[in-house]
Amino acid sequence: MRASNYLFSTLRDAPTDAVVTSHQLMVRAGMIRQISKGLYTWLPTGVKVFRKVESIVRDEMEKAGALEVIMPGVQPAELWQESGRWQKYGPELLRLVDRHGRDYCLGPTHEEVITDLSRNELTSYKQLPATFFQIQTKFRDEVRPRFGVMRSREFSMKDAYSFHVSPESLQETYDVMHQAYCNVFDRIGLDYRPVLADTGSIGGAYSHEFHVLADSGEDDIAFSDASDFAANVELAEAITLKEKADPATQDVTEVFTPDCKTIQKVAEFLTLDVSKTVKTMLVKGVDANENSTIVALVLRGDHTINELKVEKLDGIVSPFEFADEDEILTHIGCAPGSIGPQGLKEKGIRIIADRSAAVMSDFCAGANKDDYHVTGLNWERDCPDFEVADLRNVVEGDPSPDGKGTIVIKRGIEVGHIFQLGQQYAEALNATVLNENGKAQVMHMGCYGIGVSRIVAAAIEQNFDDKGILWPESIAPFDVAIIAMNYDKSDAVRTECDRLYSELKAKGLDVLLDDRKERPGVKFADCELLGIPHRLVVGDKGLANNTLEYKNRTQGENQDINTDNAVDFILSLK
Amino acid sequence: MRASNYLFSTLRDAPTDAVVTSHQLMVRAGMIRQISKGLYTWLPTGVKVFRKVESIVRDEMEKAGALEVIMPGVQPAELWQESGRWQKYGPELLRLVDRHGRDYCLGPTHEEVITDLSRNELTSYKQLPATFFQIQTKFRDEVRPRFGVMRSREFSMKDAYSFHVSPESLQETYDVMHQAYCNVFDRIGLDYRPVLADTGSIGGAYSHEFHVLADSGEDDIAFSDASDFAANVELAEAITLKEKADPATQDVTEVFTPDCKTIQKVAEFLTLDVSKTVKTMLVKGVDANENSTIVALVLRGDHTINELKVEKLDGIVSPFEFADEDEILTHIGCAPGSIGPQGLKEKGIRIIADRSAAVMSDFCAGANKDDYHVTGLNWERDCPDFEVADLRNVVEGDPSPDGKGTIVIKRGIEVGHIFQLGQQYAEALNATVLNENGKAQVMHMGCYGIGVSRIVAAAIEQNFDDKGILWPESIAPFDVAIIAMNYDKSDAVRTECDRLYSELKAKGLDVLLDDRKERPGVKFADCELLGIPHRLVVGDKGLANNTLEYKNRTQGENQDINTDNAVDFILSLK
Repeated sequence: MRASNYLFSTLRDAPTDAVVTSHQLMVRAGMIRQISKGLYTWLPTGVKVFRKVESIVRDEMEKAGALEVIMPGVQPAELWQESGRWQKYGPELLRLVDRHGRDYCLGPTHEEVITDLSRNELTSYKQLPATFFQIQTKFRDEVRPRFGVMRSREFSMKDAYSFHVSPESLQETYDVMHQAYCNVFDRIGLDYRPVLADTGSIGGAYSHEFHVLADSGEDDIAFSDASDFAANVELAEAITLKEKADPATQDVTEVFTPDCKTIQKVAEFLTLDVSKTVKTMLVKGVDANENSTIVALVLRGDHTINELKVEKLDGIVSPFEFADEDEILTHIGCAPGSIGPQGLKEKGIRIIADRSAAVMSDFCAGANKDDYHVTGLNWERDCPDFEVADLRNVVEGDPSPDGKGTIVIKRGIEVGHIFQLGQQYAEALNATVLNENGKAQVMHMGCYGIGVSRIVAAAIEQNFDDKGILWPESIAPFDVAIIAMNYDKSDAVRTECDRLYSELKAKGLDVLLDDRKERPGVKFADCELLGIPHRLVVGDKGLANNTLEYKNRTQGENQDINTDNAVDFILSLK
Repeated sequence: MRASNYLFSTLRDAPTDAVVTSHQLMVRAGMIRQISKGLYTWLPTGVKVFRKVESIVRDEMEKAGALEVIMPGVQPAELWQESGRWQKYGPELLRLVDRHGRDYCLGPTHEEVITDLSRNELTSYKQLPATFFQIQTKFRDEVRPRFGVMRSREFSMKDAYSFHVSPESLQETYDVMHQAYCNVFDRIGLDYRPVLADTGSIGGAYSHEFHVLADSGEDDIAFSDASDFAANVELAEAITLKEKADPATQDVTEVFTPDCKTIQKVAEFLTLDVSKTVKTMLVKGVDANENSTIVALVLRGDHTINELKVEKLDGIVSPFEFADEDEILTHIGCAPGSIGPQGLKEKGIRIIADRSAAVMSDFCAGANKDDYHVTGLNWERDCPDFEVADLRNVVEGDPSPDGKGTIVIKRGIEVGHIFQLGQQYAEALNATVLNENGKAQVMHMGCYGIGVSRIVAAAIEQNFDDKGILWPESIAPFDVAIIAMNYDKSDAVRTECDRLYSELKAKGLDVLLDDRKERPGVKFADCELLGIPHRLVVGDKGLANNTLEYKNRTQGENQDINTDNAVDFILSLK
């Protein structure tokens, strides 16, 4: 591409509504423009990156044996009514009415359409397993679209769906797709983690998210520094290597702790480490007779409660709910900041200690009396009747739950999600095949999504500097830029640039020849902002010695290379 | 692709609502499935063809210097209000409201969005000319979607838009795009014609349609058998090579023609050729003082009136309207079937003769008296005061208006349309650039559309037989099919098929290996229905003599080829 025929649309400043780096840089680098809240036009530089991501995704889907289909963006309400989601799905589902008054929606996802297709086209177990994918524009009417194409209303997704006669077959394809996803992100060249995830609103039994690690990510990912283990912080199991508490060495002592409303204040006041304290929280529960009760949860002072884990325990109300101040006063006789485990059992309150809290000794807790705490508390001696469970979020330094290494926590941007949906949609839409015995059997389904446009933004969040984007080579808009100094005036420069341009193009490289009548500074800045990995500068001065100047976007200094070797040199870097 | 892993979804019968061949064959060949009126899912075989068409279109656009963008499918009402089309566009524009109550539409076309983009990104004449294209899903809420993907509601289009400082620059890009369109259809391998067209509702000054010739086409295309001339029948100029009428040889004779309500009946009754008669029609006009008048149009009996041409004449009411029977009776004193030119002038009626009618002699016409005609009529002698104009549709055998060859008329399917829009949209949206003198100047625009999904259907309409589709090689879903006889049972067959499959794939061919446990008849039928251009049959019988059987889908007989030569043989055909 000759720059004189190209649309740069680079900007010095980002729009004020762009708060994340990728949004700022995508606008500044002339990749996208907003035309309405959450609706973007992709400009040429954006499209070039987008197509490269799309092409890697398509290729890996095909290698994984998935067959490409294209489903309509506009979907009939009937299918969504059949699955039950027409009512359940909130206002993110953009509903519309055609000229004949029939109801449709703009598809945010395609489970209904593919299940309908499959119940018609798949009739025998012999056709299974079958996996279909599409790369398509989706629409989600976000209440607050933000972060550019990271959370836009219209976006491009690769979604795939697999159909099976058994959970075992589903697991096999799930594993193949898991690997295909790893291949996609490996090929693009991103630092990512497949993360065990909650299944959320799509439902189903088992799922992984694929996160690109970046400080700006919206999710906290806990992963091992020594193994493949990775999970959303909310789902990661918190374990402790200590098997039991040390023997008691202190007596219980009641201490006056005035104005200490938080556990940090208490620890400070008593010059204790927070990890030597516990916090006791009362939550609503139900007993064996389905009567409302209060349950005490005890965590180490420096840990935080994980509501998802608590909700899943027997005898706890879901959704999770704290007891209010009145209830605490009635049951315990103090304010929330002074509760402790000692003596609660005698009041008929069930106690559940987090695994880490349960192995503490000589610890500090509330005294169940306003403005008082106790120190030297020990479980076995002072309140032996308690249960143990995983109640908390993991923290960095925790042992990895797979027994290998230590937990590290980083922020991640979700760019992919794979699910074992099971039979939920197939049952709702009665999608059956004849099995080996000639009997109709509901199919098992998997679904697998990748945010194609989101990957573009996530790649930037992970790869940028103060000058602009640092693209992984696989998805850079151009492989190499040739920056011509005085292209219009110098015959030597023009001849050499044209030669390099056509030879590099002939080798299959995506080349930008900057032949514009602009100052060198403008050309360098655009080249850096666009994140083109390799840069050649061609000027009369160098040509006098048969040299060009090479610079890598991410590393190293300028280096002179002989014009005769330039093409081979660039090829050797690829 | 191994057939055992593929989704054929072939059907013996087409659905009853499929009335055109391409719709029938696309459903039968497992290319598409309707999910709601005018909304289709493309199955794997359909997608493969679609992607090949898309890839040729994209490649030719890039070669023509167009830059790819992706504009949103959902467009804000504000832009359409600015262009004035929010009100003007009928119910084919699907309007919708988002969760915040804001108005949007599903884009049937993108003039507004691209003009908005360009007024922001293009600021100087130095950036022009600039051409942008996208390949995108569009939505048109057709009142009666039909013919499968040929007239569906959701469809894929390549649309391009160019921006210029002058009409001359627009003409240059228009010519480049015209050539790019020819390249697309040449590369696909279709019999097509670029056709001078009416500009219709999009507006603008100059336009060409690209038609794929096929009997099932909705448009009549007139083209020369000896030159590039081609035009919609409605727009083709009708000329006559005869410069003036022959001298009169007969006297005017009034003849009784009872019950002859049509010109055919009259000719039959008088044993005359219809081409020796004229028909005279009265239409509404206005005189120089803007008063309503009646105008007589005279055409040769075997010609048909072209309302578009008549409307464009001075003094004729537009839209075109015939005089009603009462008016005819009042002015002429007879019923419509008995009007003739003689004596009309004396009644104050303006007479316009079609060019072909104007050079007739000794002809037959109505006598302006019920049930009577006259024969032996001659213009100069009997009704000399008349005007001459082009009033009629061309017919086969007419001389081509460019003076080269003779008109042939065939039916065409419109698959592309290029327009010189001029300044209409740029003016409405105030899309200006600074010109060489530093003054703001409204840009000139061109727009260029290709129906990507429609090309797939049109290619079938032009290429099929009673067994199925006859794809042009460039867009066939597979280049070659290897049909295995007893793949599961014969080691020799399996080994040879696998060898061929991997060797042909390694040469870059798209290969289908039919390894299914199906009867040979089923495999042959699927292969023919899908229109795979080359077929190799591998069976034990042939392998005993080291031969395979080759068959071309469109021509020739089965032929035996040596297994050792098979790969080279197939490559030699490409």
